[in-house]
Amino acid sequence: MTRIGTIASHSALNILSGAREESFETVLYMLGNKRRELYEGFGVATEIVELDSYDELFDTVDNDVVMIPHGSYVAYLSLDKILNSSLQMFGNKELLMWEADRIKKDKLMKDAALKVPHTTEDIEDAHFPCIVKYDGAEGGRGYFVANTKSEVTERLERNKNASFQQWIVGTKVYATFFNSLVRDRLEFFGTDIRYETDLDSKIRFDTDYAFQIIGNIPMVLRESLLAPYYEMGVGFTKAVGKSLSHPMIGPFCLETIIDRNLDIWCFEFSGRIVAGTNLFVPSSPYSYITFGNTNMWMGRRIALEIREAKENGQLDSILV
Amino acid sequence: MTRIGTIASHSALNILSGAREESFETVLYMLGNKRRELYEGFGVATEIVELDSYDELFDTVDNDVVMIPHGSYVAYLSLDKILNSSLQMFGNKELLMWEADRIKKDKLMKDAALKVPHTTEDIEDAHFPCIVKYDGAEGGRGYFVANTKSEVTERLERNKNASFQQWIVGTKVYATFFNSLVRDRLEFFGTDIRYETDLDSKIRFDTDYAFQIIGNIPMVLRESLLAPYYEMGVGFTKAVGKSLSHPMIGPFCLETIIDRNLDIWCFEFSGRIVAGTNLFVPSSPYSYITFGNTNMWMGRRIALEIREAKENGQLDSILV
Amino acid sequence: MTRIGTIASHSALNILSGAREESFETVLYMLGNKRRELYEGFGVATEIVELDSYDELFDTVDNDVVMIPHGSYVAYLSLDKILNSSLQMFGNKELLMWEADRIKKDKLMKDAALKVPHTTEDIEDAHFPCIVKYDGAEGGRGYFVANTKSEVTERLERNKNASFQQWIVGTKVYATFFNSLVRDRLEFFGTDIRYETDLDSKIRFDTDYAFQIIGNIPMVLRESLLAPYYEMGVGFTKAVGKSLSHPMIGPFCLETIIDRNLDIWCFEFSGRIVAGTNLFVPSSPYSYITFGNTNMWMGRRIALEIREAKENGQLDSILV
Repeated sequence: MTRIGTIASHSALNILSGAREESFETVLYMLGNKRRELYEGFGVATEIVELDSYDELFDTVDNDVVMIPHGSYVAYLSLDKILNSSLQMFGNKELLMWEADRIKKDKLMKDAALKVPHTTEDIEDAHFPCIVKYDGAEGGRGYFVANTKSEVTERLERNKNASFQQWIVGTKVYATFFNSLVRDRLEFFGTDIRYETDLDSKIRFDTDYAFQIIGNIPMVLRESLLAPYYEMGVGFTKAVGKSLSHPMIGPFCLETIIDRNLDIWCFEFSGRIVAGTNLFVPSSPYSYITFGNTNMWMGRRIALEIREAKENGQLDSILV
Repeated sequence: MTRIGTIASHSALNILSGAREESFETVLYMLGNKRRELYEGFGVATEIVELDSYDELFDTVDNDVVMIPHGSYVAYLSLDKILNSSLQMFGNKELLMWEADRIKKDKLMKDAALKVPHTTEDIEDAHFPCIVKYDGAEGGRGYFVANTKSEVTERLERNKNASFQQWIVGTKVYATFFNSLVRDRLEFFGTDIRYETDLDSKIRFDTDYAFQIIGNIPMVLRESLLAPYYEMGVGFTKAVGKSLSHPMIGPFCLETIIDRNLDIWCFEFSGRIVAGTNLFVPSSPYSYITFGNTNMWMGRRIALEIREAKENGQLDSILV
Repeated sequence: MTRIGTIASHSALNILSGAREESFETVLYMLGNKRRELYEGFGVATEIVELDSYDELFDTVDNDVVMIPHGSYVAYLSLDKILNSSLQMFGNKELLMWEADRIKKDKLMKDAALKVPHTTEDIEDAHFPCIVKYDGAEGGRGYFVANTKSEVTERLERNKNASFQQWIVGTKVYATFFNSLVRDRLEFFGTDIRYETDLDSKIRFDTDYAFQIIGNIPMVLRESLLAPYYEMGVGFTKAVGKSLSHPMIGPFCLETIIDRNLDIWCFEFSGRIVAGTNLFVPSSPYSYITFGNTNMWMGRRIALEIREAKENGQLDSILV
């Protein structure tokens, strides 16, 4: 019997409630017991396993558990250990490696024919204004925008690897998709905006501001923009298929900025479920249109794919 | 057998998914085949018809198809051709004409006892700050705000008809309604905010900004404001009944700004479905309260009206 | 037979539609008849009672009606009369008193181990920037932010009691909870942002701005922030249990700001249903996860608690 598991953060409620709806038993792994009361209240975990460290996970997860990776999973576990472990994990592990490597990431987005802001690790080569990002920074902590080279030099933290990405003046849109191998189709799932710290203070005090993500706000795109976004999703799926040893499997997100000419720039991608989909439990406008009166949130979509793959004897092809 | 059709943009997913839910067969008309994959993925069209030009539509649509007009329908087809065609179209065609004519539009809003910002086509008569709008501009493209006459002169594109509308400092709210002839009532459907290009850049760089609509964000009004909004909707419906040869039929939107005295200004209306209703599939908080456990999004509400009118022998009175 | 009643404003649609869903008859009390058409359209009131003044309420409400207090209820009725009346009222009346008294309010939040911005009624003791709030101001009317003492002196309205609350630079989050005595658990319900007048004008004109609440916008929190918020809710519930003669009963809201260090400050609470929950009809992402396919909005949650308390013979313990 297959069970579904994940780590208690990011989109765990979304994932486990979806698994429950598809009749899977679920396992939730958490550090210590501080979050137990919260998660028990929601009643989504058949079993809760407390860990002393995230590394313990690799020795703890049973063979019948399919782990669903999310943003915290990727942030808390070492990528090397994920890649070398024998854990059953939904999706394409190799893509996590491409996502973590700025050069590979850039290449994949360009292969997908996406319009990508100029990014460099050499300040001499930076286009201004630029946003300065630290490798492995969690949730935008420490990011800043600079208009000149000297502004960067002044504020850059020593001994940290940073990249300098051209800042596109425009409006951000986070678009999420699900690529189904079982149904052989790319589904458009929804869009959201991030709610970031200090936005409010900027409006009111014109002080400098921070970029930490606090949450997400729902939106729908102009329908005339849906078609180019869908093409971008198709392009991304094809690029993964060409450059990696396995196809795109399951959810991904294209993180975009639309400028005043309605050009769409893609500045990041996430090759797994994103927290923006937490907004759309039990359904997004788009998933509702796709699935009709069957509520379909991203966590459930993942569980549905696993169930259908299992029924078709395709499970191996979605746990790579 | 009546079928329901529309053009592949704006709120077509909303409209066709609603028609499907009310058991209508549907026809989707699109320019070329670029959007076919997107719309086929959603499975809402019984039939997809590709056109070489939108003008072909008038010769293509079958007699049993009721067309649902939306923002792109009005933008892409010539108004003259719409008015003179023998297409079956849901709603009050004449209202589209009133909406397209700035002076008639202004008059209708004033007849409805709405508080309307001062609007003029004569720069000498403009109230500042004003927003400069071009006739027929799509989605806000090219609009700008000016504080003085010389600012206008400097930026105005030559040979374009523009109007100068007093800019009300306040907070925008787009309120949507459905006027049902069959059930003889005005339904309050929901509210949203538009998400526009460059809003973000303005916050971060204080640069000049653009106004193109990218999408919509949901909101709910303070309930104490619902009553004046509902009155505005009633007033608008009555004004249409008085000034036009046919009553208000189906969805409309009042586009408003609330200033710091909580005065509500109406600066535009749309006499048809608006894209803000795309947020509320399968329901808005208000439609849920009105219709209980029957999901009711705007596209479905339209289809329900058509079905009930047909059952009552009233179909002619809603296709005028 | 128990009926459920409230005043026609704030969250009345939310409350009465929920009561209807739990099979209660409902009574809606309104001043005059101006809102009758609006509320009749929604069909949520079994009976509508028109009042000449809100004070009439105390003599009008029948013995079998349980009144649900909301923001307008508290604003329109005198607190003294509420506390001394024999009306059956859902929740802990005494908490309304603590909420209305700035010093008691502050104490309760501190007892709950919440991080509270420095608040004082003595300008000499104010921390700047501060937000100046008038006692009993409705919906933020007249509030302003000041950077210096002289700014305060200049703008302060004479003869009004004001308090000076340290302004935390950050991002606001309104988090709502439901404490169920019947099921003996604290439920996390959802989060929203307020949509305030002049936000837009600030972005576009850098003028001074107002703070009146126009409506609410939905959001979801980063899941890693859910745990500290849940702890805050638990802390608040315990503090009420310790300091008041009765426990926390039903809905409450913690009104917070997250600063760039991800510290969460609580600057207000509401000891009853808040209008932000109007967004989440028929469900919030969190209530959906808690209650599965049973739609559960806040108005229904309240009615469910009343129904279950009645079935268990506990009704007296939730009407205190």
